[in-house]
Parts: sequence; structure tokens; C-alpha cells
Amino acid sequence: MTQPSAKALVPFVSVDNMMRLVHHIGIDQMLQDLVAYIEEDFRRWELFDKTPRVASHSDVGVIELMPTSDGEAYGFKYVNGHPKNTAEGLQTVTAFGLLADVYTGYPVLLTEMTLLTALRTAAMSALAAKYLAPKGADTMAMIGNGAQSEFQSLAMQAILGLKSVRLYDKDPAATQKAARNLADSGLDVVICSSPEEAIQGAQIITTCTADKQNAKILTDNMVGAGVHINAIGGDCPGKTELAPGILSRADTFVEYPEQTRIEGEIQQMPADFPVTELWQVITGSAQGRRDPAQITLFDSVGFAIEDFSALRYIRDKVRDTPYHIDLDMLADPDDPRDLFGMLQRAKA
Amino acid sequence: MTQPSAKALVPFVSVDNMMRLVHHIGIDQMLQDLVAYIEEDFRRWELFDKTPRVASHSDVGVIELMPTSDGEAYGFKYVNGHPKNTAEGLQTVTAFGLLADVYTGYPVLLTEMTLLTALRTAAMSALAAKYLAPKGADTMAMIGNGAQSEFQSLAMQAILGLKSVRLYDKDPAATQKAARNLADSGLDVVICSSPEEAIQGAQIITTCTADKQNAKILTDNMVGAGVHINAIGGDCPGKTELAPGILSRADTFVEYPEQTRIEGEIQQMPADFPVTELWQVITGSAQGRRDPAQITLFDSVGFAIEDFSALRYIRDKVRDTPYHIDLDMLADPDDPRDLFGMLQRAKA
Repeated sequence: MTQPSAKALVPFVSVDNMMRLVHHIGIDQMLQDLVAYIEEDFRRWELFDKTPRVASHSDVGVIELMPTSDGEAYGFKYVNGHPKNTAEGLQTVTAFGLLADVYTGYPVLLTEMTLLTALRTAAMSALAAKYLAPKGADTMAMIGNGAQSEFQSLAMQAILGLKSVRLYDKDPAATQKAARNLADSGLDVVICSSPEEAIQGAQIITTCTADKQNAKILTDNMVGAGVHINAIGGDCPGKTELAPGILSRADTFVEYPEQTRIEGEIQQMPADFPVTELWQVITGSAQGRRDPAQITLFDSVGFAIEDFSALRYIRDKVRDTPYHIDLDMLADPDDPRDLFGMLQRAKA
Repeated sequence: MTQPSAKALVPFVSVDNMMRLVHHIGIDQMLQDLVAYIEEDFRRWELFDKTPRVASHSDVGVIELMPTSDGEAYGFKYVNGHPKNTAEGLQTVTAFGLLADVYTGYPVLLTEMTLLTALRTAAMSALAAKYLAPKGADTMAMIGNGAQSEFQSLAMQAILGLKSVRLYDKDPAATQKAARNLADSGLDVVICSSPEEAIQGAQIITTCTADKQNAKILTDNMVGAGVHINAIGGDCPGKTELAPGILSRADTFVEYPEQTRIEGEIQQMPADFPVTELWQVITGSAQGRRDPAQITLFDSVGFAIEDFSALRYIRDKVRDTPYHIDLDMLADPDDPRDLFGMLQRAKA
């Protein structure tokens, strides 16, 4: 049997190989690179084919496909969200993604995206903070110490020069875990026993909790002038973290308003609640932070273009490394019209 | 490093393994099995989550995602359509698919679907013909002898007991190829030099040509009483194969009217052109063929549920065979909240 041609083979990055790739590049370097790739794509925001995610809901969770294209490459992410999974020893969120060549329609990369999403989400937060956090911000309150917390802390360190992270979680074991994981990071790690303690002296407040209800992780009186709020955990209908009063006082920045109004913190506000699109801040067509006393809010829900940037990055980086295998995923008969002949010849 | 748990591993069926699986089961048996799986899913049509396909168009082609779910399993197919690819030695259509468990959101199968789509398309045609073709139909005109033609012929043989296939293609080399591939099939294979010759004595006329324009492969005067037309090739806006006069005289059966009105032969007809949904014929709530002289038309464009049936079938069949490998595609930390710890431990 003849071997399939190179184009019929799709490079696949497993979880194991993704971990090797991260350590090969270095996590700080990778976070910086991801910020650069996302920033590049946000600068050309307008040319992307933007579709709302395609969701399939059940009683216990959701499965989503998030496709987008820049006209040259096409990418999509498969991601599930099943809060009850944790109690069964499974991941709440798992993800994988695919990048394809628009000109041929052939896939060019298949990769795990659970780890990659954690990295791109942290990179996205750091990119927003680069444009929105007060100058010289060096202390972050990290409220919610789950799977995303260490990545958030390291990204703020790599991009903004964060010096101190103040950890709080309603489950002290989660905080202990995060503190342990960050022990060698060079960050000053402070374990806090209340959200109020965590926000003391912090110019950046990141909320990333898993409550699936309209919670008030931050109440109105907790947020003072000159703070940047990086709100990650409110990311589906019915799930928010901030008191509406904070939104009224803050200037709110979003990825894709059509999606954020359904899934983000601003689902609590009227449909015409004013927001600024982050890509416009990055291109300079809208203002980011305008004075030190302002409260800025990045109401982050995650958008397909961020995954696209991450897929582009992995495609570029994995090419000359051993951190992938080639999958024989595309039928490749010598004569495209003779699929049956290919099948018959395989019998022999 | 600890190995990922069984649930974090996703069985993958490569093109090579799919070919082995087909020969292991036997192509006739597999076509019969696929008909049974599709028929089972058409019987429970109403409980499926039906979304139109999500398409990303470019100047040279289209990339589509086709998701669906029955509430227990979730499936989607990635498929491209690039007519210009053939001239570059690439496939016009390539496909792969994924099946996931709705309860956990975890993928349970990743598989090539170029070959599998050819098989399910032929099975779908045979299933429709089983309900619509005149009793005792044993001769088929096969107009268009490309990649789908042999699969169509074998499916009609396996399901309906077809005895003779009359081949025609405007490219005689394609007909020679199909005749060669079917030489050992047990079918009486007749090479024809015109569509008019091909349809002589045929009770079933299958059209599967690749013209991307409103073509008239069958003109009105070619189609007489008592014929079943299986129209496969009209499957996107601007691409049809039948003269409108045939549609006016035939009773038309479709998969999913919302999609067929955009992509099928009936795109030439008014928006309220009467059609019957095939699933209703299968459940008995609508009539199929009602008299021997009637002209029936299956205006087939391919629907996500057919791919779902095929994915279910492969999941069930591949389980106890060596025809798959396990992909480490899902991150699986011991503590779901400790993704970073998993990454750090991989460094050692």
C-alpha cells in the first residue's frame, strides 16, 4: 500500500506533548508569545469571520464549537462545560482544537486545548491589563484559586511585572494548592482569609470562581478608585461574579459585545449598557484607561479569535520539534475520483 | 508521570484502519448495518437537536461543521468542499468526525470520515430507495461515475437486490474506472455512451455529477412513469442536476426541508413547493410510493443525523477490534483544579 501524501497527514499535539512543548519553550516565554499572537489578531479584528459559538445544551452541561477564520486559516475549538464532572473525578472543561488551510480545506493541526486554553486565557487577561491596569500596578488579588489561578498570576508577572499575588478561595485547600504551585515563581504569594483581605493594596483584582449562579464575589463597597478588575469567572448565562453597582461605576471593556451581553457580567445590565471593544483600544481607535482614579473592568468570556491565535502559535512552534505525531486522518487516493479503488487495493 | 485515565484517551480510527475495518466487516454487511443504524435514527428523528450546518465560505471552497445530538451522544463532522482541489491532486471533499458523551462532555471517538461519508451516503440512498423505488426494481442508471458511484451501486445491490447497473459519465475514463471496480461485484455492468442509453430499462436513476452550476443532467422528456430518481449531486446553492419539469411531475422526498430548500434540487422551485420528509415515511406517518406509475424523487443533500448514525456505528464496531489507536487528547490531572500542578510535574 502506498503511504498517504504529506498533506493527508495531520500533526497532532497530545496533552503529553503539549506539556513538553510548554517546558521546551518556557512558560513565561510562551505566555509572552501568546500575548503577541493574540494582540496581532486583535489588531486585524475586522477581517475575521465572527460567528457566535454553536452550543448544544443538556441538563448537566454544554458542548460548544467555536469556529473562526481570517481568510487564510480556519480554526475551531471543541469545548465542554460540565460543572458536575469535578465531583466524579473528571474535568469540568476539556477542549481540543483544529486549524485548517482555507485554500485547500485540509486540516493542518489537531491539538489538545485544555492546557492551551488555560494559557491563552491567562495571556488574554494580561493583554487586557497591559492596556487597562493603572501604571506600575504590581499587586493582584486572585479571588478563586482553581485551575486558572496560577496561569493568571504568571501571565501578569510575565507581561506587567507583577510582584505580589494575594490569594483567596472559599476552599482553603485550593489556596494552599495555588500557593504551593507558585512557591518557586518569584512572586510574593500572600494567603488571605477573606476577599476583603485579598484586595488590600491590589491595583488588579482578578475574579475566577466557579459558582454557577449570580454570585457577588465582589460587592460594591469593596472596589475603590484606580483599580482594574479582570473578571474571568462570569462566562455563561446565569453566572456572574460582580455586584451591578460596580459595573455602574466602572468603564467596561469586552471582547465581542454580542457574546458578552449574553454570557458576561454585563448580562445583569440593560441591553444598551455602554461597553468598549478591546480590539479598538489596541488599535488606538478607542481609549483605554484615561485616568489613574478610573475603575476599569475587563468582562472576559473568551472568544474564538483567542483560540485561533493559540492554534496559529502552536502550528508555528511545533513544526520543527518532536512534540507531535502525524495522524493519517484524510483519505488520499492517487486518483481523487477513485476512492473505491483505494479501498479495494487496501484489501490486498 | 502517571498515565492518563481511560476516559482521557480518545479512540482514533485512521484512514488505514477504516479500510481494514471495512474489509474486516465486509462492505455489503457494513452497508446493511449502516442502513439499519440510519433507519433507527430516522425513526426517532424528532428527539434530535437539529442545527443547520455552520459554514465558512471562501472564494475557492467551504469548510463546514455539522453537529447534532440525540441527548445521549453528540456528534459532529468537519467537511470541506473545494472543487478546484482535484486539479491540484487533492480531494474535493475530506472529512473527519467526532462522537462525544453528552453526560460528561468527553469525546469517545475521533475518526476519518471521507470513506465513512461515502459509505453512509450510499446507505442513505439505499434506505430511501427501499421505501420509494417501485417493487422489484433491479436495474439502476448511474449517471456520474465519480468517487460515489461504486458505493451507490453496491448499496442498492446489498439492500434492494439490484442486478444491473448502467454506467454513464461525460468522461469515459470515469466510466471505465467504475466498471473495473465493479467487475467482481456480481452486478451486471453496462457501459453506456449517453444518459438516454443509461436510463433504458432502469427503474432507479441515480444522478451524482460534480458540475457546479444549474445543469440539466436529466431533461424532462427523459423521465417516464414508474421511476425512482435518487439525486445526489445537487448539494449546494447553484448546483442542481434536474430540469424543473421533472420536479413538477414527481413526488419529492427530502431529509431536512430547511436545508434541502437551500441546497437541493428544490432550490429551483418556489419556497412552498410540497415535499415529504423521509423520516415520516419510515415511521409510517406519511406515504411513500403509492402507485407503480408514480415518479418518486429523493432530493438528497446529506444531513448531520446520517453522520451521527455512522459515528455511532463505528464506535460500536471498532471497540473490540485492533483498528484504532488511543489519543491522549484530554488533560486529566489527578485533582481537576490542579492543571498547573500536572504541568509542573511533567517537567520532572
